[in-house]
Amino acid sequence: MASNSFGKLLTVTTFGESHGAAIGCVIDGCPPGIAITAEEFAHDLQRRATGKSRHTSQRHEADEVEILSGVYEGRTTGTPIALLIRNTDARSKDYDKIVEQFRPGHADYTYWQKYGIRDPRGGGRSSARETTMRVAAAVIAKKWLAEKHGIRVRAHVAQIGEIRPRSFDASVVEDNAFFWPDAAQVPELESFMDALRKSGDSVGARIDVVADNVPPGWGEPIYGKLDGELAAAMMSINAVKGVEIGAGFASITQKGSEHRDELGRDGFRSNHAGGILGGISSGQAITCSVAFKPTSSLRLPGHTVDVEGREVEVVTTGRHDPCVGLRAAPICEAMMALVLMDQALRHRAQCGDVGEVSPRIPGAVQ
Amino acid sequence: MASNSFGKLLTVTTFGESHGAAIGCVIDGCPPGIAITAEEFAHDLQRRATGKSRHTSQRHEADEVEILSGVYEGRTTGTPIALLIRNTDARSKDYDKIVEQFRPGHADYTYWQKYGIRDPRGGGRSSARETTMRVAAAVIAKKWLAEKHGIRVRAHVAQIGEIRPRSFDASVVEDNAFFWPDAAQVPELESFMDALRKSGDSVGARIDVVADNVPPGWGEPIYGKLDGELAAAMMSINAVKGVEIGAGFASITQKGSEHRDELGRDGFRSNHAGGILGGISSGQAITCSVAFKPTSSLRLPGHTVDVEGREVEVVTTGRHDPCVGLRAAPICEAMMALVLMDQALRHRAQCGDVGEVSPRIPGAVQ
Amino acid sequence: MASNSFGKLLTVTTFGESHGAAIGCVIDGCPPGIAITAEEFAHDLQRRATGKSRHTSQRHEADEVEILSGVYEGRTTGTPIALLIRNTDARSKDYDKIVEQFRPGHADYTYWQKYGIRDPRGGGRSSARETTMRVAAAVIAKKWLAEKHGIRVRAHVAQIGEIRPRSFDASVVEDNAFFWPDAAQVPELESFMDALRKSGDSVGARIDVVADNVPPGWGEPIYGKLDGELAAAMMSINAVKGVEIGAGFASITQKGSEHRDELGRDGFRSNHAGGILGGISSGQAITCSVAFKPTSSLRLPGHTVDVEGREVEVVTTGRHDPCVGLRAAPICEAMMALVLMDQALRHRAQCGDVGEVSPRIPGAVQ
Amino acid sequence: MASNSFGKLLTVTTFGESHGAAIGCVIDGCPPGIAITAEEFAHDLQRRATGKSRHTSQRHEADEVEILSGVYEGRTTGTPIALLIRNTDARSKDYDKIVEQFRPGHADYTYWQKYGIRDPRGGGRSSARETTMRVAAAVIAKKWLAEKHGIRVRAHVAQIGEIRPRSFDASVVEDNAFFWPDAAQVPELESFMDALRKSGDSVGARIDVVADNVPPGWGEPIYGKLDGELAAAMMSINAVKGVEIGAGFASITQKGSEHRDELGRDGFRSNHAGGILGGISSGQAITCSVAFKPTSSLRLPGHTVDVEGREVEVVTTGRHDPCVGLRAAPICEAMMALVLMDQALRHRAQCGDVGEVSPRIPGAVQ
Repeated sequence: MASNSFGKLLTVTTFGESHGAAIGCVIDGCPPGIAITAEEFAHDLQRRATGKSRHTSQRHEADEVEILSGVYEGRTTGTPIALLIRNTDARSKDYDKIVEQFRPGHADYTYWQKYGIRDPRGGGRSSARETTMRVAAAVIAKKWLAEKHGIRVRAHVAQIGEIRPRSFDASVVEDNAFFWPDAAQVPELESFMDALRKSGDSVGARIDVVADNVPPGWGEPIYGKLDGELAAAMMSINAVKGVEIGAGFASITQKGSEHRDELGRDGFRSNHAGGILGGISSGQAITCSVAFKPTSSLRLPGHTVDVEGREVEVVTTGRHDPCVGLRAAPICEAMMALVLMDQALRHRAQCGDVGEVSPRIPGAVQ
Repeated sequence: MASNSFGKLLTVTTFGESHGAAIGCVIDGCPPGIAITAEEFAHDLQRRATGKSRHTSQRHEADEVEILSGVYEGRTTGTPIALLIRNTDARSKDYDKIVEQFRPGHADYTYWQKYGIRDPRGGGRSSARETTMRVAAAVIAKKWLAEKHGIRVRAHVAQIGEIRPRSFDASVVEDNAFFWPDAAQVPELESFMDALRKSGDSVGARIDVVADNVPPGWGEPIYGKLDGELAAAMMSINAVKGVEIGAGFASITQKGSEHRDELGRDGFRSNHAGGILGGISSGQAITCSVAFKPTSSLRLPGHTVDVEGREVEVVTTGRHDPCVGLRAAPICEAMMALVLMDQALRHRAQCGDVGEVSPRIPGAVQ
Repeated sequence: MASNSFGKLLTVTTFGESHGAAIGCVIDGCPPGIAITAEEFAHDLQRRATGKSRHTSQRHEADEVEILSGVYEGRTTGTPIALLIRNTDARSKDYDKIVEQFRPGHADYTYWQKYGIRDPRGGGRSSARETTMRVAAAVIAKKWLAEKHGIRVRAHVAQIGEIRPRSFDASVVEDNAFFWPDAAQVPELESFMDALRKSGDSVGARIDVVADNVPPGWGEPIYGKLDGELAAAMMSINAVKGVEIGAGFASITQKGSEHRDELGRDGFRSNHAGGILGGISSGQAITCSVAFKPTSSLRLPGHTVDVEGREVEVVTTGRHDPCVGLRAAPICEAMMALVLMDQALRHRAQCGDVGEVSPRIPGAVQ
Repeated sequence: MASNSFGKLLTVTTFGESHGAAIGCVIDGCPPGIAITAEEFAHDLQRRATGKSRHTSQRHEADEVEILSGVYEGRTTGTPIALLIRNTDARSKDYDKIVEQFRPGHADYTYWQKYGIRDPRGGGRSSARETTMRVAAAVIAKKWLAEKHGIRVRAHVAQIGEIRPRSFDASVVEDNAFFWPDAAQVPELESFMDALRKSGDSVGARIDVVADNVPPGWGEPIYGKLDGELAAAMMSINAVKGVEIGAGFASITQKGSEHRDELGRDGFRSNHAGGILGGISSGQAITCSVAFKPTSSLRLPGHTVDVEGREVEVVTTGRHDPCVGLRAAPICEAMMALVLMDQALRHRAQCGDVGEVSPRIPGAVQ
């Protein structure tokens, strides 16, 4: 399978550069009969968009989705669904210097080394603009998961630099610019981000993603494990440097008697496993935590080399996010949803005859 | 691609259950002409084996590799290489209870829910015995990477429970039972593990893996990123709950001005990226850190249910590792090596005409 | 890999319906640095187009290609190349009846049975309009094969109904509306086709495809054989019912002493193998012959059922080709070129170290 | 996917050389719960075996299957099923000359050119011995298709050289050494084959394969078409040079009014399509015809070159089939069964919600 494609049975192929004519995707293998309209993409694209607050890049893209194929009279037909978004606010002149210089911490140097040629405008293919199409594609996956299985996939920001939520209230996450679960902390975050932006520096973030109501049995051992594919999916997002399932790195210091999630007829008594055992869902909530590095595009000067190998000082003047993690919640949700739907189809393929197996333990504890 | 296969061009397919007749693998897509003998598998298999010290499971397997195909007069021919290891020390009677009960923290329940049938002997397919074949397959990958590119892949244990190395000396890692880089701490670890084993409990561990001399340009954006595939590879190992590339979760609290690895003609000035930018190797060392959960098979009783849905108390009496991470160093190396060789072949396929690109920055800092 | 994608390393994903907004494709895995402009697609698309003569469907499509991504300053960058063609001459009202009736010999009934929903306008996804994008994608493949390896892929019509060429002159193939290698027969074909069109009936055709200068060694045993993939590629074209490599079905009556292509230092003495032995190219010309069935869309009434299961008489009134094979030469060339380039990249991946092997026998005889 | 693997969801990976230690396969993605024993492989392996009559190669292999994994208490568990057959009657000394010489019509030269190294013993990997494992793997597929869908896959020899069946009686096919459907012709075939064998020459054959009771809806447009995958599957069998679906090459001279299979409430009125329209099964019998070339291993001397490039005369003295097609019926059945089961699982994955669609037309005519 080509490297710009994702998923085994529900396959999403994305294309497009940050400042090219358009970005788009082809969704193949989608079940027929799902109702979908171009308008339904707007909500999640808006959640991911830049320019909504002063805390993100000031690029303003309409992100209007055109459905080119695969939908007839408002329903998917089982043939490939092509989605297209024209780029409208690409200001390539901001990037004149990048043509000549390799920004530290960016893919500039590695694309150059790999291909011997690169599109430097806005980072070209390595830009996070590509993730727009993941979010778009996942709108269909989320809808199918919700309608067919009652699954809800939600993400929130769980850390910005040193700041962590002091409380958790899922209902406020969508009401602030930070996807933050503690409304009381929002003013503090505003101040922090304002100061950060003025300093010209950036900071990292953590995103937590949870999927509820995933039935037991999804996931394929050994190399198609649900957690393995989630790890790949999250790590494929720009700026991600770490992925945890369930207790994650905290498992290292746990004792086995603490970590193992005991179970009874009422359900599991804890969820350190993050809802996955042996690569297969247990019926508990699937939980995943993702580390985003700080943006490398800074107004602060940095040392680098240019395409002639000369040492130079670089300053990035384009529009950038001081904390890329802030817009990453819908992207992490998208990757979780795409992985789950793909695994759901694969499970149905191999085990469609198995039916519901007893005993079925409720996935009580998140 | 089937889920018991790994890799796109260098494809390893494994088979076998813990207490079945045999375990084995088929390595497809291997370049021809690589010298290999059955004896060369012994070293790494021995490093991974149980029963070498009192700190691991007491199962004693000869792990003798038979090369069934793909090698002629001591050289690979380009056709599939099948490797076979007969199981010789399987004591299935130890697992009588497991037939009826779902061990907490194990794949017992999830395999049952997925397939409606499972081989309970020694954990069946979900046993870490499967990783033997990953290590075997990677012997060929390591050899090719070393001979063709001068690449060395090494792993060590970087944390056991709360204990971390106080110093780092690569030369002592292979001289103790813990793959530990600080020889002075070995007695402390001996005591810790003895006490743990006697308590009937278990603990987690962290493994650090490093590959040196990887040339720039390996890795395929977007969904075939080198870090994405490493994440999937590591997360596919039994008991893994977290994966970091480079600075990993520490990136969250870093400032961009600290995290971005500046570069000069002499090389990069730091390696927070872990040698990967935009999913493509930069020429620096590839660094990866992996979290292993504590073993769930404990002599300490735990709450669970049986196949009839009754609540029962479970005690696991088989032979188990009090810290699975202790034997994981060669497994992590294996997965890193397999990912790298696969990406090397893929890079050659697409970019074989590109040749060496200027400027080439030395990957000075690990 | 998804079913609307083709090729393992050079992967082409197509999308679009006959009367939808647009058709398009994404070409992934293409080597960087290939010079390409939107204008270069025109020639082959024109060769494949309808409406050029009275002997094909009278649909007139501009077939203007927009390059959406993957090309920067006139060269491929190694990132996915998306091509888009808007549909401009779709007259769906011609197909009103098809909504209700299953045309015999068409995919109407099978799409309906598979998906429970179908886009009936112009045959939707099952229309040969999809092959436009194969031809477009192959323009890049043909260019790479020619520039890098001197390979030329050519096809001609080798049979229309009972009529076969009486002589072979490659230089006249592109000069007549029938891709016919015997200029003297063209008037006869004109009369035949005029009479056929007036009768409301249709007829089948044979296309021969040849690739010259393919080096020995391309093709992967066992299930990735060059001939196996050519067979799949050709059979995936609309209306194809048979594929032969080399002597094809004539091999059945041949003796081994006749069929086996003897070789000497000057080259092979015959080419019954069609340039492929054991699934691997021998250095001789790759030859393939493809059978196209007669179009099933006829003005002559036929028996069928409607969506309610009632028996009805169907007459197809849309614009159709009385002999689809007539426009199939560039499509067959396209599939041959895509298979060859994909195999070339795969060969380089696995056997890039092998270099040129002695003795190299010239592929003298076509 | 690796090239020694076949199938997308039901994936069969084969390994082994003709005169190596063993041949084997790994079947991945198989549904759980299928009853299977080692004994069940014997019947089809025996049908394919050499040495049963004087008309095939005199190599005598026990072909005893050992199930290494994936089956527990007589049922498949959903984990990979590894099958192993030890080679017992390999006489490599017969092939001394082949080490130095390239047999015309064989893969000797192409393997050498591709890999720069080859296992010459008995043809190594390019030997038809590999097909043993296809037949073994398909035993499970045939059982599943029969039990779950009532599908029966049968093949017979439909032509040997110039000889074609004068009548068709399915019930006699298994009663003669030629898989021949006309018992009265068997003496004629005996004489023909005896004369052929004595002459030292060989001849080609045609195999017809039919699958009954395939439900409508299997097959994935565009590049995963059922007929496209059948073509690839058949062409991947050693010595195959042509594949037809339904009317095949005869479609060329058919009129559309003849070829299109009209349909009524009682069913289709003909089956020129071979049960496939638009790449999707129609509910009629799937019919396929396959051309096998004459064996190239002859006692009759032939011209060739040796590894030093010298022109030499070659005589093949090993044990060979004067007509390889004679044992190909079970192999063709195997490939048809594997394709069908794989497509069945894929159809269930994408369209598992669609259910039975009206109107369902009986597939009356074969």
